[in-house]
Amino acid sequence: MSDMGRSGASGATGGAAAERSRTGEIGAVKVALLGCGVVGSQVVRLLDEQADELAARVGAPVELAGIAVRRPQRHPEVPAELLTTDAAGLVSRPDVDVVVELMGGIEPARDLLLDALKNGRSVVSANKALLAEEGEALAAAARESGADLYYEASVAGAIPLLRPIQQSLAGDRIRRVAGIVNGTTNFILSAMESTGAGYADALEEAGRLGYAEADPTADVDGYDAASKAAILASLAFHTRVTAADVYREGIRDVTAADIASARALGCTVKLLAICEQVDTADGAAVSARVYPAMIPRSHPLASVSGAFNAVFVEADAAGPLMFYGQGAGGPQTASAVLGDLVAAARNKVIGGRGPRDSAYAHLPVQPMGDVRTRYHVNVDVHDRAGVLAAVATVFADHDVSIATVKQEGRGGDDADHGDGDASPATLVVVTHEAPDAALRATVEALSGLESVRGVASILRVEDLGRPVSALGGPQ
Amino acid sequence: MSDMGRSGASGATGGAAAERSRTGEIGAVKVALLGCGVVGSQVVRLLDEQADELAARVGAPVELAGIAVRRPQRHPEVPAELLTTDAAGLVSRPDVDVVVELMGGIEPARDLLLDALKNGRSVVSANKALLAEEGEALAAAARESGADLYYEASVAGAIPLLRPIQQSLAGDRIRRVAGIVNGTTNFILSAMESTGAGYADALEEAGRLGYAEADPTADVDGYDAASKAAILASLAFHTRVTAADVYREGIRDVTAADIASARALGCTVKLLAICEQVDTADGAAVSARVYPAMIPRSHPLASVSGAFNAVFVEADAAGPLMFYGQGAGGPQTASAVLGDLVAAARNKVIGGRGPRDSAYAHLPVQPMGDVRTRYHVNVDVHDRAGVLAAVATVFADHDVSIATVKQEGRGGDDADHGDGDASPATLVVVTHEAPDAALRATVEALSGLESVRGVASILRVEDLGRPVSALGGPQ
Repeated sequence: MSDMGRSGASGATGGAAAERSRTGEIGAVKVALLGCGVVGSQVVRLLDEQADELAARVGAPVELAGIAVRRPQRHPEVPAELLTTDAAGLVSRPDVDVVVELMGGIEPARDLLLDALKNGRSVVSANKALLAEEGEALAAAARESGADLYYEASVAGAIPLLRPIQQSLAGDRIRRVAGIVNGTTNFILSAMESTGAGYADALEEAGRLGYAEADPTADVDGYDAASKAAILASLAFHTRVTAADVYREGIRDVTAADIASARALGCTVKLLAICEQVDTADGAAVSARVYPAMIPRSHPLASVSGAFNAVFVEADAAGPLMFYGQGAGGPQTASAVLGDLVAAARNKVIGGRGPRDSAYAHLPVQPMGDVRTRYHVNVDVHDRAGVLAAVATVFADHDVSIATVKQEGRGGDDADHGDGDASPATLVVVTHEAPDAALRATVEALSGLESVRGVASILRVEDLGRPVSALGGPQ
Repeated sequence: MSDMGRSGASGATGGAAAERSRTGEIGAVKVALLGCGVVGSQVVRLLDEQADELAARVGAPVELAGIAVRRPQRHPEVPAELLTTDAAGLVSRPDVDVVVELMGGIEPARDLLLDALKNGRSVVSANKALLAEEGEALAAAARESGADLYYEASVAGAIPLLRPIQQSLAGDRIRRVAGIVNGTTNFILSAMESTGAGYADALEEAGRLGYAEADPTADVDGYDAASKAAILASLAFHTRVTAADVYREGIRDVTAADIASARALGCTVKLLAICEQVDTADGAAVSARVYPAMIPRSHPLASVSGAFNAVFVEADAAGPLMFYGQGAGGPQTASAVLGDLVAAARNKVIGGRGPRDSAYAHLPVQPMGDVRTRYHVNVDVHDRAGVLAAVATVFADHDVSIATVKQEGRGGDDADHGDGDASPATLVVVTHEAPDAALRATVEALSGLESVRGVASILRVEDLGRPVSALGGPQ
């Protein structure tokens, strides 16, 4: 409660300072807001509209000390006296209790938050990239000064997910966290599924409706989901996992044909973030990965459409849990930010402290090549005698067991049209679980077969384990 | 951290006391466990199996100081030196830091926990009846001494629900919390749905499989769900709501015919707990109610079967959220207990404090008669001319608007068989929303109609608002 009870130290907060004693006993909790875009402007609105309720919940008014933006003239909706372009100056103001960071990106957010934490300001951040990359440094700074560091809004927008994982399940052993954590890609894949559109058209539609940014790289190439996976894995497995530790594939290469193939198998395609604790020959390890995968249409995640997010958590004692809600959007993300802000502010008032960083387990990250997954492979072949045997032999040579194989195109496996040149056909192969490296090597070897014209597509298949059966699914 | 660092004060914990310095700096956090049944024995097991992990997460070992039970000879699985029949003596032992209460019932749990809290011991409880009835007294005791009071396990077993409502959504306005919070009744209704069995047979089956207790009153009459609704409403709306404030109907009167009627309408029957903040002519009010209701089969809650629980939360900024998981069971409930225990123990170690009770809003509870719901009514009538008009007039006289009406049985509304005695038929009426009192009065007036043979069944219909459409539902 370092800065409670003092009068405002800055001219910019003179008006707010005069109101500091509304509760009679405790001064206001002063908030520095860094960034005022889609989320920040909603935070400003809600702080104003809910001022009385927030004061009652915190035990003191929660007031803006200032808002750091790049171009003040672009924020006519915000009281001009609160705006500043000097973020560093705002963060170091002595009357600031909590810093809310909604700038995004690594710098200058990193330096600003490290400064804030070192000086005992609590931090609330929605910055998944920063948390995934610099989580350890931020946690260390918070630990040393006793400040709070909250970042619920960095993963899955409004869905309460980090607090349940970090606190509610703190007495359990989490085995898996898996789900849909990027609304943009889910919107695009849902559109491809429902309209039969190709990737490019669906992306354009997403951009037009505001679900995709002008540069969609962070979303469609899986960087956003990978950052979130790193944060989830770090909390779930008490091990520092960075975005660089997360295996990542985006959705750019998913075709309308892939979606159709998935449908033919009773599946749909979703971009999944999967974090698991696995047992290896050398002991426990963490796997964290992001890729598009086929999942059964009967799985609850299959019906999560548009910009919604949903995450399954499986723990030894708790069993399967699901969390569902809107994973992005200004008010939704602002809700998560304000929940954290109330917690940080309340701790300032009552002298409490939020949960500490917990990374005692130091588990190694399992290389993607060792991860056991299943592949769905479309192999374009020359439709002639022996082709299936040749393909099957390649799988067997790599110790990859085939679950199902189906030939599409003219004739059967033994069809030889007698003209010396076989017609084209496609073998649709779904494997059992095998190490990813073995599956990759199999696909590579297939491409070298004389009877194979090419590997048309590869998608992983995830049945997402127990939750499928445990849930039952819609009747 | 009142009791940290001292050596064990009791002969019964001599063994544990010797280990108190495993972390080198901080003594063990000592736990008094009250009750050792289905959940308690799992807490004992998990504390033992996960001792190292829990110590790492808490920052100090978490050790049992003692276990209070009624009949020590019934617990051969627990170290005999920990067992005691003197719960009051255990709670007042000076080396106890946290009291975990799994006894259930009001007394002696109430007095024991009030004593513990007044003496600065933090409390973790799974006792929904106690929290729903004496939540205010317990919260006051915790507030005065600065002790923590956690009770995540009291609602929806393993599902993290209270922490998200109380903390993650602390910066938002929650409008509705609605869902399935009793596994026994959900099992029975699911069985009736899937097998066509009547209530009595399904209850017997539930008992045989361990889903229903020998005296199922608390579950099937809705008392259990009402306690949970009181807890949820209190947290969501910052208003003290007790079980007595919750309108309650159980499932005893749900018949196989009701389930069949629901199916004919594309619905299924679930026992719902619904907590809402509503706007009335006199300002905001809280509605909390528990009853069986028809919900659309396309709603995600409809596919929650067996002993699973699922709860929707709607907040202004966050939008709709869903939480899903196992709502009962030893390990599942123990997971929630241990999450709270880690939080309470960590606070002891780092000097933190959990969230305070927040009941500043003091909203009135809306009388059930004022709650706007929809009725599905089966009216047995004499199938003769004018009967539909007579029935419709009764609804109109009570300002209840009919959404659909269907006649089942021989002939149409105007059929008169000319023998002076009309054949029986049934009118199936579904209303629009109306105040419950008006609906009740309508039903009562119907029974007095000369052409009505009786009102065969009444069930409310809930479309559960926005989440239905927002979710999309399974494709």
